[in-house]
Amino acid sequence: MKDHPTSSQDHGTPAMNGAESVVRSLHAAGCEVCFANPGTSEMQFVDALDRTGLLRCVLALFEGVATGAADGYARMAKAPAVTLLHLAPGLANGGANMHNARKGRVPMVNLVGDHAVRHRGFDAPLTADVEAAARPFSDWVRTASSPATFAADAMDALAAAQSRPNKVATLIAPADLGWDAGGVVAPPPETAAFAPLDATAVEAAAGKLGPDTLLLIGGTALETPDAVAQAQGIAKQTGATVLAPTSNRRFDRGAGRAGLAKVPYPINMALEVLARFRHAILVEALPPVAFFAYPERPSLLLPATCDVLSLTGLDGDGPAAIAALAEHLGAAPHLPRAVLPPPPQAGAIRPDTIAAAIANALPERAIVVDESISGGRDIWAATQGAAPHSWISLTGGAIGDGIPMALGAAVACPDRPVLALQADGSAMYTIQGLWSQAREGANVTTLIFANRTYQILKTELFAVGANPGRSALDMLDLDRPTIDFVDLAKGMGVPGRRVECVADLQLALVAAMETPGPYLIEAIM
Amino acid sequence: MKDHPTSSQDHGTPAMNGAESVVRSLHAAGCEVCFANPGTSEMQFVDALDRTGLLRCVLALFEGVATGAADGYARMAKAPAVTLLHLAPGLANGGANMHNARKGRVPMVNLVGDHAVRHRGFDAPLTADVEAAARPFSDWVRTASSPATFAADAMDALAAAQSRPNKVATLIAPADLGWDAGGVVAPPPETAAFAPLDATAVEAAAGKLGPDTLLLIGGTALETPDAVAQAQGIAKQTGATVLAPTSNRRFDRGAGRAGLAKVPYPINMALEVLARFRHAILVEALPPVAFFAYPERPSLLLPATCDVLSLTGLDGDGPAAIAALAEHLGAAPHLPRAVLPPPPQAGAIRPDTIAAAIANALPERAIVVDESISGGRDIWAATQGAAPHSWISLTGGAIGDGIPMALGAAVACPDRPVLALQADGSAMYTIQGLWSQAREGANVTTLIFANRTYQILKTELFAVGANPGRSALDMLDLDRPTIDFVDLAKGMGVPGRRVECVADLQLALVAAMETPGPYLIEAIM
Repeated sequence: MKDHPTSSQDHGTPAMNGAESVVRSLHAAGCEVCFANPGTSEMQFVDALDRTGLLRCVLALFEGVATGAADGYARMAKAPAVTLLHLAPGLANGGANMHNARKGRVPMVNLVGDHAVRHRGFDAPLTADVEAAARPFSDWVRTASSPATFAADAMDALAAAQSRPNKVATLIAPADLGWDAGGVVAPPPETAAFAPLDATAVEAAAGKLGPDTLLLIGGTALETPDAVAQAQGIAKQTGATVLAPTSNRRFDRGAGRAGLAKVPYPINMALEVLARFRHAILVEALPPVAFFAYPERPSLLLPATCDVLSLTGLDGDGPAAIAALAEHLGAAPHLPRAVLPPPPQAGAIRPDTIAAAIANALPERAIVVDESISGGRDIWAATQGAAPHSWISLTGGAIGDGIPMALGAAVACPDRPVLALQADGSAMYTIQGLWSQAREGANVTTLIFANRTYQILKTELFAVGANPGRSALDMLDLDRPTIDFVDLAKGMGVPGRRVECVADLQLALVAAMETPGPYLIEAIM
Repeated sequence: MKDHPTSSQDHGTPAMNGAESVVRSLHAAGCEVCFANPGTSEMQFVDALDRTGLLRCVLALFEGVATGAADGYARMAKAPAVTLLHLAPGLANGGANMHNARKGRVPMVNLVGDHAVRHRGFDAPLTADVEAAARPFSDWVRTASSPATFAADAMDALAAAQSRPNKVATLIAPADLGWDAGGVVAPPPETAAFAPLDATAVEAAAGKLGPDTLLLIGGTALETPDAVAQAQGIAKQTGATVLAPTSNRRFDRGAGRAGLAKVPYPINMALEVLARFRHAILVEALPPVAFFAYPERPSLLLPATCDVLSLTGLDGDGPAAIAALAEHLGAAPHLPRAVLPPPPQAGAIRPDTIAAAIANALPERAIVVDESISGGRDIWAATQGAAPHSWISLTGGAIGDGIPMALGAAVACPDRPVLALQADGSAMYTIQGLWSQAREGANVTTLIFANRTYQILKTELFAVGANPGRSALDMLDLDRPTIDFVDLAKGMGVPGRRVECVADLQLALVAAMETPGPYLIEAIM
């Protein structure tokens, strides 16, 4: 499936084509990496990226790997990566991880090729509405309209991605605009300002703090250990409780940092934890919402009688707001007493023993990518006192972000070991990411939680009183045949091993994280 | 990620819930298979399918496998399968193969779960606009609005899918409507009629037939060997030329049947083949369009001076139209002299030798699934005289339909061997389909054309005069690391072997197609 330039005479001449103007502008604005799965209608970008050599190009074998890697990259680099995708079907393949990034307020710039303008009306086989396909998974969508304004469009996309809160921006690039001469490099966008802090909100928040007050902090505040420590200091002084949302873009935590509990995922636990609050103060967070609707349970998880004050919205500077509140109260930062990791265990691999193994094996400055779903439920608590680390997790509920995010995090931080906690069912959505990990020599240890079932769905079906028969279980169990993840990894150039007891798991984890390059451990649960 | 019924008291009582009414109605209307990748918001369907036992449920580990399998199933069963998908991100994952089915005018009914109605406004993590995500890849979209009308909506979806030409229909199913009581089984839709044949068009077509006339036939005509033979008879009598479009839903061909050449994919070849025609008569076909825009080449491939007559549109009965035209002319069916397959070759595996091996190895009644892209260019001609077979191929250009279509074809026709001709780059988009092939014991031989590159893109980049450097080649080559498809297959329960010469390939093909169940052959090119 391929395309020619529509103005081949412009190609290779001193006149800059549209694609080159876009690449040069993105680089000048600080973009360093492109995660790509190009087709014919993106060859002008492949050519421009190649000739200029300005961005590092990482090939993905499936678009969901490219968008998921861009997600993980941006969370760790605190700057967007660019993706390069092919027409509406290719964009759709990347949609689930665009969704996850969008829900996590992660910045992303997608360049999506389209047919040449004059070819659009003919209903060629690959024709579909690219803008319409982009919109459900993007905060900002535009189709470029001329080579001269193409780079300016890209800078508008970048500005949108970096605006507060960060966003997913998709620029659609008709093939001819990329090949045609007349490209003009555009200046980088202004640095996006946070929404200003409202001094009266600080005072109002201070007046509400007490033992029945929840201080819910998200966004950049969780990426700033000092801000978390200040929030804990506020809590210590006022008796309030600090929590983080259930799903977060990134959390920098571990020994020597003030940790936080999260609003629990299971609805009954969440309602129980939140029931006692009469006031809630939100910092870069929204009122917590249940993942799904449950019978005779509310969608909003705070008590209906709880009054909610937004100290900063999602577009605000959380650390500055927390600092202002702490100053107003005269509260000093506070580190709650460190909780040591549980001692290493022996025996079978279960959620509790795997949590202890991880907490003890985690090296200094690791990046933990969490898509462990049901098998990983004990790890958050167990790792509070583990070596300091960054924790990035699934934010939009669309499984299949873990392996790609680990790739992107490793590209962003080549000097930090990455540990991907990966449920087996979820791993299969974007398993192709292992190949890109091998190609890039990404320093990722993938730990597969092989319970061989969509456990979370099975639990739920039982919980609603169904008595599932063979047909239902066949749609939830992954054990016929069992998947051999070590073979899958080997097939894509990633070495690995299978472990069946937790002592072996711990040894394997330590060895894998000490060794550069990708490795996969399949833990049979 | 899971959901509870919102009206649990209705579950398991004699009152039928919405989901059960949908399942019972689909079954009564002749639907037999559901390709599923469900999540929490589809548990009501998992439960209803399980309790009723009315549809065969096939689990896919990725949504593109489910929609691609539904595509392959419908092409062979000549009836739609149902898919079960999870919210907007899951739908998007299935979008590329919905696109391929849509471009091939293949019938498909997608059931896509959404949040319960009351939960929609809260921007929960998995919330996105499901209708908007469905529209670019569907001909028909509706969101169900009550348990009582839910089954009638499903029958409207089925009617749309089976209308002429066949269509992709997507019904969005809020979770509460499935769990709530009050479901009412709806009657099957009427059988869709073809658009009536225009007798004056038959007369007009007869008047235009001559040596400078193209008769281009597609759709159901290609699935009807008698119609193709009649078209060849018309050509013999009048001097006209019969061709098939480049990409087709299905073609029943081989020894003892009248074959057809296709409009070539490469634009220069297509323009050359079509240049001499002054008249074109279309039967279930549209005027041929180039895949992409090319410099100084038209998008429409017929000469601008060629007059075009549509004997039947895409909604017409092609075989009846051809029969009427043949009768009008007094033309008898004609089978051009059989072209025997080329003799088996020895030595390296190249496009010509692999074509000979396939033509000789193909068993009687095989189903050939063609996503071989550049490596398979010689196979169509070589197999014209091979044992009679059905040929189904990529119709929308969105790579990643081959492995899933092979699964679906095998489910539709368990007594027929399936041979999937699969380019290596394309295989990686939906490689998870091998696991479902293993689980279902699908009688599929997957032949991987391992040229270890996106060859078609590389050819194109060279053709436009680019002198690609390391960065460009890195985005087109798949050889660092090489992918071991035998390991990948083994990891998903499919046995396989690698072959490096064409004699071994031929032996491996014959053995694999004689042995029930899935098998994978990686042919190093």
